[in-house]
Amino acid sequence: MKYDRTYNFSAGPAMMPEPVLEEIRDEMLNYRGSGMCVMEMSHRSKVFQQIYDDAVADLRKLMNIPDNYKVLFVQGGGTLQFAMVPINLLKDGVACYVETGTWSKKAISEAKKYGQVKVVASSADKNFSYIPDCSDLDIPENCDYVYICENETINGTTFPKLPNTKGHVLVSDQSSMFLSRPCNVADYGLIWAGVQKNVGPAGMAVVIIREDLIREDLDPKTPIYLSYKTHADNDSMYNTPNCWAIYCVGKVFRYLLDMGGVAAMEKKNIEKAKVLYDFLDSSKMFKAAVEPASRSLMNVTFRTASDELDAEVVKATKANGFDNLKGHRSVGGLRASIYNAMPKEGVEALVDFLKKFEAEHC
Amino acid sequence: MKYDRTYNFSAGPAMMPEPVLEEIRDEMLNYRGSGMCVMEMSHRSKVFQQIYDDAVADLRKLMNIPDNYKVLFVQGGGTLQFAMVPINLLKDGVACYVETGTWSKKAISEAKKYGQVKVVASSADKNFSYIPDCSDLDIPENCDYVYICENETINGTTFPKLPNTKGHVLVSDQSSMFLSRPCNVADYGLIWAGVQKNVGPAGMAVVIIREDLIREDLDPKTPIYLSYKTHADNDSMYNTPNCWAIYCVGKVFRYLLDMGGVAAMEKKNIEKAKVLYDFLDSSKMFKAAVEPASRSLMNVTFRTASDELDAEVVKATKANGFDNLKGHRSVGGLRASIYNAMPKEGVEALVDFLKKFEAEHC
Repeated sequence: MKYDRTYNFSAGPAMMPEPVLEEIRDEMLNYRGSGMCVMEMSHRSKVFQQIYDDAVADLRKLMNIPDNYKVLFVQGGGTLQFAMVPINLLKDGVACYVETGTWSKKAISEAKKYGQVKVVASSADKNFSYIPDCSDLDIPENCDYVYICENETINGTTFPKLPNTKGHVLVSDQSSMFLSRPCNVADYGLIWAGVQKNVGPAGMAVVIIREDLIREDLDPKTPIYLSYKTHADNDSMYNTPNCWAIYCVGKVFRYLLDMGGVAAMEKKNIEKAKVLYDFLDSSKMFKAAVEPASRSLMNVTFRTASDELDAEVVKATKANGFDNLKGHRSVGGLRASIYNAMPKEGVEALVDFLKKFEAEHC
Repeated sequence: MKYDRTYNFSAGPAMMPEPVLEEIRDEMLNYRGSGMCVMEMSHRSKVFQQIYDDAVADLRKLMNIPDNYKVLFVQGGGTLQFAMVPINLLKDGVACYVETGTWSKKAISEAKKYGQVKVVASSADKNFSYIPDCSDLDIPENCDYVYICENETINGTTFPKLPNTKGHVLVSDQSSMFLSRPCNVADYGLIWAGVQKNVGPAGMAVVIIREDLIREDLDPKTPIYLSYKTHADNDSMYNTPNCWAIYCVGKVFRYLLDMGGVAAMEKKNIEKAKVLYDFLDSSKMFKAAVEPASRSLMNVTFRTASDELDAEVVKATKANGFDNLKGHRSVGGLRASIYNAMPKEGVEALVDFLKKFEAEHC
């Protein structure tokens, strides 16, 4: 590769498109004749306003976001969204959660601070290796929202189909699958995504929220930063936003549009994941951790027969230019995160290496 | 200037040192042989851990931070700190605030959500153009902390001397003066600063907190992200931090050490501010907005006799390579923010231009 770059299989922060990094580099000392780096710009300046406007417009185009949805950029990552969702959406009713792994568990534990929470489905029985059937959930009538983590980064699962919410609001954490394939925004009340996986640097979440869900009658003890209304009423600039992240994700949005949009990404991502899953399903040494119907296109989890051999694989891959293949510390095993910016050649090279490794160790 | 850069007098985000921007540019596609941009690195990787460790160690060195203080990097800017301070430090007592302008007012209004707040001094009577005498404040015995905004960015004031807290904990918002001059950290219980003014890109606050002030017996409804303990126990990596900001501020910390540290910065900053204040005090057209004893070295506020002429100055300076001289929209007038990264030549060139402007308009 140019610049002697590593194939980086990190679950996030993760690879960004090389042409985007080149543009950012070239604009570092003087952004398009402004005489400034984007990091130095007043967020109230015209030049930054244009960067913001373009980013929002391009995301709207990419996802075909209906007019009655707001796009917000909020700091604090997923951890703050775990609190902001119930603080803003849980009224006197019940929040229904589908439990599919670490991130939905964290969301559940945070939501319990703010009202009644019901776990309406779970895959805990099989170590979160599948997505439970959500076609006929027992959802109470006074349900305020149904929450899913649509792609569990750590376990490597994706919802093959959205849950039947029986008319209630659907909230989805799309962090590790954001913009990896088309979705129909109107199916959701709120989509949020930490941008550090598929679209940019850490330090910001994108929130796409249906306008009628933005309330002002929150608990008076709510910090002003934690109200979606604060961000919605001020175009995400009630206070200084993470301007750099807005600039970077804007470039990625533009790049994705130039590449053919999310439909083109989905095609590529299916091809890329197939290379890896086909190998895993044919290997004697490596096994995919997730049932076929629930497999993520983004986070491919697998393992060998032993922790020791897993560790050996991590070491050998690292020494050969494939980085961050260690599974999350909470589950062990191996994981290859292959987001939009991972080229197919990277996956093919990894599979070639794993094949060789297997041949040498049998 | 190299790269045809503008003298940018923005109050924040603001100028960064050119050598720092050059380094960042040069490391964009491949940080020191890692094969990655810093934006692409797992925050759990060794290479990023080193960036984090260096940043913390260099800040400790710069400020001579005692061992019983923690350094935290938190997202959400000042707005989230306005809530986090009372949520974490206000127990059953009273929070005492000194009201010196917009930012202390916002801090007060947020604190009132969480308990009893007492404004112990204010300069509202003269439009926040001075810092009130804080040598003998009426502080109740059950005071949990005394809060100041040590440099009010909008009004252009700085505390000439810390308040006499009568033994109670002092909390200071140092955002717009952070690392501009030495301070004795042991005089404070907590110092926080949004980094987008004097040290880096927007999207992060540095919090320096005395360990015994980190509590776990918070209101059970506190979002986990808003507890200082969450960040302290996990070296600011409970969740993915703003890695890019940590990387950038780390470079600025290193640069400041190389330049001679904060004592050297103070000397430069006094010289720079003197150039501008001396001109303002001798001018017939321009007048400094703040009483001499309370003047900020960082944000120099001034005005002409009319809003129309102020607007003309903004337009003329902008056309001649001096950007962002408009005062904050809430107070009007003019403001030159001259943080560490503004070279003395920039201030001298501005004064030359203002002299010429005055001569032409008299």
